[in-house]
Amino acid sequence: MEAASKKTAVGLSTADALLNATSALMTERNSVDVTFMDIAARSGVNSALIRYHFGNKVGLFKRLLERDAGKTIEDLDALVRADIPPAQKIHHHIFGVINTYFRFPYMNRLIAALSNDAESETARFIAERFTRPIAAAQKAILEQGQRDGTFRAIDPMLFHFSLIGACDNIFQARYSLQHAFGIEEISDDLRRRYADHVSSLVLKSIVAD
Amino acid sequence: MEAASKKTAVGLSTADALLNATSALMTERNSVDVTFMDIAARSGVNSALIRYHFGNKVGLFKRLLERDAGKTIEDLDALVRADIPPAQKIHHHIFGVINTYFRFPYMNRLIAALSNDAESETARFIAERFTRPIAAAQKAILEQGQRDGTFRAIDPMLFHFSLIGACDNIFQARYSLQHAFGIEEISDDLRRRYADHVSSLVLKSIVAD
Repeated sequence: MEAASKKTAVGLSTADALLNATSALMTERNSVDVTFMDIAARSGVNSALIRYHFGNKVGLFKRLLERDAGKTIEDLDALVRADIPPAQKIHHHIFGVINTYFRFPYMNRLIAALSNDAESETARFIAERFTRPIAAAQKAILEQGQRDGTFRAIDPMLFHFSLIGACDNIFQARYSLQHAFGIEEISDDLRRRYADHVSSLVLKSIVAD
Repeated sequence: MEAASKKTAVGLSTADALLNATSALMTERNSVDVTFMDIAARSGVNSALIRYHFGNKVGLFKRLLERDAGKTIEDLDALVRADIPPAQKIHHHIFGVINTYFRFPYMNRLIAALSNDAESETARFIAERFTRPIAAAQKAILEQGQRDGTFRAIDPMLFHFSLIGACDNIFQARYSLQHAFGIEEISDDLRRRYADHVSSLVLKSIVAD
C-alpha cells in the first residue's frame, strides 16, 4: 500500500502524523480517551489508514509509548554505568522523568491504559519494556549509594512507586493546578522548579545519617 | 417514589447499595470506566433508579467521592489545630491519605474524571471541596514547622503535588506492582510499609538543617 511511505507536506510519514495527532489530542484533553475518529479528524488521515498502520488502538498506543519514552529507557543504562556520584544520578534521573512527563503529560495514563488491557500480554510487555528497566536502574543507583556510604538503606520497590508518583502528579493533576491554584499551564520555569523540589525531597531523605 | 427509602435485605438503602456497587466495580477494574448498566447488573437495582437517585454519572460520582473522602477532609481541620508537633501532623496526614487510597484506590481517578468534566462547575466544586482544603491544611502545618524552627522553607504547592503523587502511585499503578514486582494485592502490611516509607521520605527531607 503506497500510503505507508507517503510523506505529508512537512515531510512527516503518515504514521508520524498519526502519532503526533494522538499525542496532541491526549495532551489537550488530559486524557487517553481518544478514538480513531478523533485522530482521523485531527490528522486528516482516513481512519482505515490508522488500522493499516497500527492494527488496533493497543498497537497505536504501544507505538506512541515507544516513540515518547523509548529513548529515556535506553539512556538509563548509560546513567547507571556513568562515573558520577549516585546522588547526581538520582538528580539526573528525576529531571529526566519529569522532562518526559512535561513533554508527554499523558505518559502514565497511557501506561495504565495498556496495563489494564484485557490481553495480559500487553501488560507484560509494558512491565518488561518500561517498568522493570526503570525500577532496576533505580535499585542499582540506590545500591551504589549504599555501598559508598552516601545513602541509607531504602526499599527499592517502595522508592520506585513514591518517586514516580511524585514526579508525575503535577502533570496528571493539571486540573488541580488550574482550579485550586489558578495556574493554567505548566511553564518551563514551573517544570524546573518542580524537578528541583522533587530532587531535593528525594535526595535529602535518602542521604545516610 | 417509594424506592428512595427502600432498604435491601442487609439494611442498605438503595442509594448506598448503588454506591457500594460502583465502588466495588471501580476497585476491581482499577478504573472509573463504569456504566449505569454495569452498576445495575452488579447491584440488582434497575438503572432507572440510578438516574432517580443521582441524576447522571457526575451526580453519582460526586456522591461517591463525598462518601469516601468527606470524612477525611473534615478530620483535617482538627489535625491542623491539634496540640502536637508539626512533624507528627505530617505523619498522621500521610497515613490518613494512604489509608483513604487503600480503601478507595480509584479516588484520584474519580477526582480526575470529575475535574475533566465538560462542566467547569464540577471542576470548581472538586477544587473547593477537596483540593483546596487539603492544600491549605498542608500549608498551615508547613508554616507551623517553619515558625517553630523544625522545618526548612518549602513551597507548599510543589509539596502538595509531590506528597499526593507519592501517596497515590502504588495504588494507581497496581498493574506495575503485579507485572513488574509479582505482587497481586496490596496487603495491610504493604499499606503500612508504604505509608512508613512515604512518611520518612517526606519528614527527612523537610526537617530544618
